Amino acid sequence: MQTRAQNLSRLLAPRSIAVVGASAAADKAGHQALLSLERFDGEVFAINPRASEILGRPAFPSLSALGRSVDLVVFAIPAQACPDAIREAIECGCGGGLILGGGFAESGPAGVALQERVAEALAQSTFRLLGPNTAGFVNKPARVTASFVAGADRIADGQVAVVAQSAGVCLTVSFLLGQLGSGVSLAAGLGNGLDVDAADLLEFLAAQPATRAIALHLEGVPAGRRLFETLRRITPKKPVAVLTVGQQDVGEFARSHTGNLIGSYALRVSALRQAGAVVVESTAELAAAASVLSANRLAPRLAPGIGILTAQAGPGLLILERLKSRGVSVPTLGAGTIERIARCLPPMTYIQNPVDTARPSESFPEVLAALAADERIDALAIFALSEPAALRPDQVLPAARAACGKPLLFGTLGPPPEVEPAVHALRSQGIHVAGSPEELAHAASVLALDAGLQARLVRESSQPAPALAAPAHERRDEHAAKALLESLGIPAPRRVACRSHDEAHAAFRDLEKPVVVKVLAADVLHKTELGGVHLGVADSAALQRALEQIDAIPLPSARGYLIEEMAPPGLELIVGAVRDAGFGPSVMLGLGGTFAEALKETVVRLAPLSSGAALEMLDELPAAAIFDGFRGSPPLDRNAVAEALVALGALLCGDPTLTEIEINPLRVHPGGVLALDAVIV
Amino acid sequence: MQTRAQNLSRLLAPRSIAVVGASAAADKAGHQALLSLERFDGEVFAINPRASEILGRPAFPSLSALGRSVDLVVFAIPAQACPDAIREAIECGCGGGLILGGGFAESGPAGVALQERVAEALAQSTFRLLGPNTAGFVNKPARVTASFVAGADRIADGQVAVVAQSAGVCLTVSFLLGQLGSGVSLAAGLGNGLDVDAADLLEFLAAQPATRAIALHLEGVPAGRRLFETLRRITPKKPVAVLTVGQQDVGEFARSHTGNLIGSYALRVSALRQAGAVVVESTAELAAAASVLSANRLAPRLAPGIGILTAQAGPGLLILERLKSRGVSVPTLGAGTIERIARCLPPMTYIQNPVDTARPSESFPEVLAALAADERIDALAIFALSEPAALRPDQVLPAARAACGKPLLFGTLGPPPEVEPAVHALRSQGIHVAGSPEELAHAASVLALDAGLQARLVRESSQPAPALAAPAHERRDEHAAKALLESLGIPAPRRVACRSHDEAHAAFRDLEKPVVVKVLAADVLHKTELGGVHLGVADSAALQRALEQIDAIPLPSARGYLIEEMAPPGLELIVGAVRDAGFGPSVMLGLGGTFAEALKETVVRLAPLSSGAALEMLDELPAAAIFDGFRGSPPLDRNAVAEALVALGALLCGDPTLTEIEINPLRVHPGGVLALDAVIV
Repeated sequence: MQTRAQNLSRLLAPRSIAVVGASAAADKAGHQALLSLERFDGEVFAINPRASEILGRPAFPSLSALGRSVDLVVFAIPAQACPDAIREAIECGCGGGLILGGGFAESGPAGVALQERVAEALAQSTFRLLGPNTAGFVNKPARVTASFVAGADRIADGQVAVVAQSAGVCLTVSFLLGQLGSGVSLAAGLGNGLDVDAADLLEFLAAQPATRAIALHLEGVPAGRRLFETLRRITPKKPVAVLTVGQQDVGEFARSHTGNLIGSYALRVSALRQAGAVVVESTAELAAAASVLSANRLAPRLAPGIGILTAQAGPGLLILERLKSRGVSVPTLGAGTIERIARCLPPMTYIQNPVDTARPSESFPEVLAALAADERIDALAIFALSEPAALRPDQVLPAARAACGKPLLFGTLGPPPEVEPAVHALRSQGIHVAGSPEELAHAASVLALDAGLQARLVRESSQPAPALAAPAHERRDEHAAKALLESLGIPAPRRVACRSHDEAHAAFRDLEKPVVVKVLAADVLHKTELGGVHLGVADSAALQRALEQIDAIPLPSARGYLIEEMAPPGLELIVGAVRDAGFGPSVMLGLGGTFAEALKETVVRLAPLSSGAALEMLDELPAAAIFDGFRGSPPLDRNAVAEALVALGALLCGDPTLTEIEINPLRVHPGGVLALDAVIV
Repeated sequence: MQTRAQNLSRLLAPRSIAVVGASAAADKAGHQALLSLERFDGEVFAINPRASEILGRPAFPSLSALGRSVDLVVFAIPAQACPDAIREAIECGCGGGLILGGGFAESGPAGVALQERVAEALAQSTFRLLGPNTAGFVNKPARVTASFVAGADRIADGQVAVVAQSAGVCLTVSFLLGQLGSGVSLAAGLGNGLDVDAADLLEFLAAQPATRAIALHLEGVPAGRRLFETLRRITPKKPVAVLTVGQQDVGEFARSHTGNLIGSYALRVSALRQAGAVVVESTAELAAAASVLSANRLAPRLAPGIGILTAQAGPGLLILERLKSRGVSVPTLGAGTIERIARCLPPMTYIQNPVDTARPSESFPEVLAALAADERIDALAIFALSEPAALRPDQVLPAARAACGKPLLFGTLGPPPEVEPAVHALRSQGIHVAGSPEELAHAASVLALDAGLQARLVRESSQPAPALAAPAHERRDEHAAKALLESLGIPAPRRVACRSHDEAHAAFRDLEKPVVVKVLAADVLHKTELGGVHLGVADSAALQRALEQIDAIPLPSARGYLIEEMAPPGLELIVGAVRDAGFGPSVMLGLGGTFAEALKETVVRLAPLSSGAALEMLDELPAAAIFDGFRGSPPLDRNAVAEALVALGALLCGDPTLTEIEINPLRVHPGGVLALDAVIV
């Protein structure tokens, strides 16, 4: 029996195909599927109980009657008939199948049950299934178009693989790639993704020589951690751009579409970026990102420098602004570069970055060469409206790229009869051409972001991934939680857990006054609201009052008292670690306090993570400047916050019995952090 | 002598043109300018001291030698020669001029001085000047192309006027309009905008029948208030879309480009929106917005409903998400609509909004008609990948639009030979066609935003614009400022201003304890840091200590004491009003406290404004949910905050001697607001 990986290859690059439900009726999916296999040069069999030949292909009443296995079975039959048909295909030793069309988990409870029956049919076998509820796939090097969608067979050949949850998005991105002068190596819709998912496709594509970049569209991601691990292995070798939905509340429609839950958008995007994928915002951006990455890639580098050369200042300003808004470095040029360019341009032109040539002129190639030679510049974004009398980009740019060896991206506009031949000539020489200043900026930012993400991936891979084990923790109260945190190196205030008033008074005498007096009991919620937290207790009379108020709280179990020193002033944060159902251990950082809760802005990352990655989380907070000190106070201890995040993540990775830890608040001050309250689940 | 407005019309729609600096040398701007006038059917004169004829046009040694006035003078001469040439044009009675090329304020101190000399030449005349540092303009109905830029004469005719600070952006947007099947009525670069500015162009375009929508690109806006007032008059008649820069720190390059300062991006965007202009984020969005608005416009309505009809679920999800992210209403459909659509579609399809037909089918026109008939739907966004066998959009959509009378926007993709004819046919029938799901969502959101902005404009126009006069206020201390606020209806805590310790002790006896004791002096800053603010003063010993500490503050002038009751707990805000150099009176709202200061997120509006507009400012705050009450507290008094904003704006409008008022903090609680500190400048 072949392995699941081998059968996935049989499915996606078959040498023999059977269409179950092949039909001579032009309006049937089984007709369209057979038609779309016209260019396939392997064996094709029609399966139909009432024909001996369809569209020139030999027909058989059933897969069993065919008397041999095929690599790929296309199921173009009603949803109800699929489970039995799959069992038959498995018995025949076929490699994989593809269920065209829906009627499964996306369509309500009956469909969910039917999809479960398909899953049962698959269980215990290595047979692979794409879909259900997909329009199929195109594999250009294998000359396979297994789809019932008209037009799929006319997608241009190219070096970008498109993997989409949705067939409609798969086709949209494929056609957009065509408009950019790129094309596809493979295009596949995952549909409900019952068996074959995005990670499977990525594994296949990593080994497909024709694919040089991957465009990925995701709605929900049930097996998030696996996708993360797969991406992390693949993106250093092949660049991946991702478009994913769910920033807005669109869950109901999304579920009706592929039967999947959307999950947390923020966690998904963080995980994708941590795995080295460039996350984009639209289908056009996805196509452009994959297209530019298929022909250009920078070496891993945290902040590569983009040089902007523009023949018109206004568009140059738009390019600069867009790059800055995406955090891309547009470095100041070296003195030598500026001198060399100044010799080429009229005295009043702006020679910084951007370099503005004030319309193209004869000196354009020399200015370009000077900018490209600057060691601060890793890639160039060049914009010029069409002025063929002054600049022939199809002659100048390829020569310049050959001379400098750096990626060189171009943007232009003009009267179509004049511009189109130049654009075509440039693209045929592998130069990316954008159709507006902002599209050029997008392409340049994709190069820079990809290099930055890869540099972070190298950093994370080079650091040991700590996995801390928690000490035994039968008790679940605040004191035990804080003791656990202390064992991880996260300090908490000096404190004493007391079982009686006498113990409390004794503890009070030893601690620095004033103190906080808190109720101590397993799993007590809303301590403050119940009168279980007393701040600023400065003398023993106040202590006694606090203890009596705590005694008055109705509690099902025994209570104790936590006598704790007050913390120095500082900023309150929420830090936590959660085991996500799909993506596994993750850490979270947010601002504490009422405003911050109303802001609901938190930053998430998958664990384990390095201190460097944790420090970057701080910088992503909406009010990150606050760590530099506010109203004259010294800077807060960023490193201590980062170390707390690293430790929480490591704990969740090391101790599978824990599902959640939250420190709320974690107070950060100039000299470190203190966990003021904590809950462990 | 003709008026400035008449001369602007002569400049932009001339019947006679002289090119000063006309040249037979092909590389000169004076050559290109003459060439570009080939299609102009009025009179053209070449001005050149050393020729009698250039390019078939009669030549004269000077404007004076021509012996008559012309409507438009194109100055294609060195910058230094322009001031004298303008004086000569004015003496000859010419209407307006256009300085091609730069060398003025954008190029450094010498250029600034030269631009001032041009301004002196213009002073006291009604002669109008476009530029300097512009590439000129195209006026299609007047058959004028006054430009030295190659390609400007090949911009397609159409109904959109493009007015840009930058010639490069003007051409970029014009060519993008051509790609959308639209074209331009007028395209003009403002350059340094010394005389003719965006407001002038808007006035001209408001009266130009060929123009049905305006695309505006702005960098800095020196005469902001005039632009605001002009836009406010014009947008109800002709829709305006605007792209403006300055969200990032790009000031130095921007100034080098047109010699203008960028100013506050947030205030500019708020002012443009208040004036009814749709603000967009890129040149492609600008072209698409103006294009869609030139052929479609909704009646003013706060939240018009968009109906989404999609033949593929994945793209439909992207459209829905994009619309939601822009705050556009995608309403639930009526029960009757859902029933009617359910009769057309297979049972498992999603019939909400979006309506997903799960590929186009024969029932598509009927589904479309049902959706369009729903009274909750004001415009439709329809997406379908090309499947000509199942759907002919060029037949179905125009008929559907005629039947429902609602704007109907389409998005499609497919193999170009199949899609392009259909797109062309649709566009020729005035249906906007977008090339991706997100572009379709953008077009639909533009319609919705425009209608919402116009509804707000109607609301503001229908409310009396209050202009409050401040009472005489020679004193500038906190007590006087609070008294002024109270006269505007903004409450402050009960308090007594005291000149001596005795007065302070007397006041203390009358007020509710504890009180706040503050130093009272004109223009004292950093009161808290100096020890001039004492909170929670509960007994007369504490009062005496506070008074003595205030006495110890070194102050140049006499000091008093403010004894004030403590305010109830609540949320701290900063509200203020400022007279902006360009846009005039404006109001500001932000969150108070340390976090909020670090967030730096404030909301601004031009004054005067209605309570409705002020309430919308609250909703735009990043943590707006906090007004609904937090941690179980009742909702805060939004209306009182709004009224304070309205009053501050009215005061700045009514009293031109005031430049700034800031209440920091304004405490809002469930029962109203209290100004805890205030400064008036």
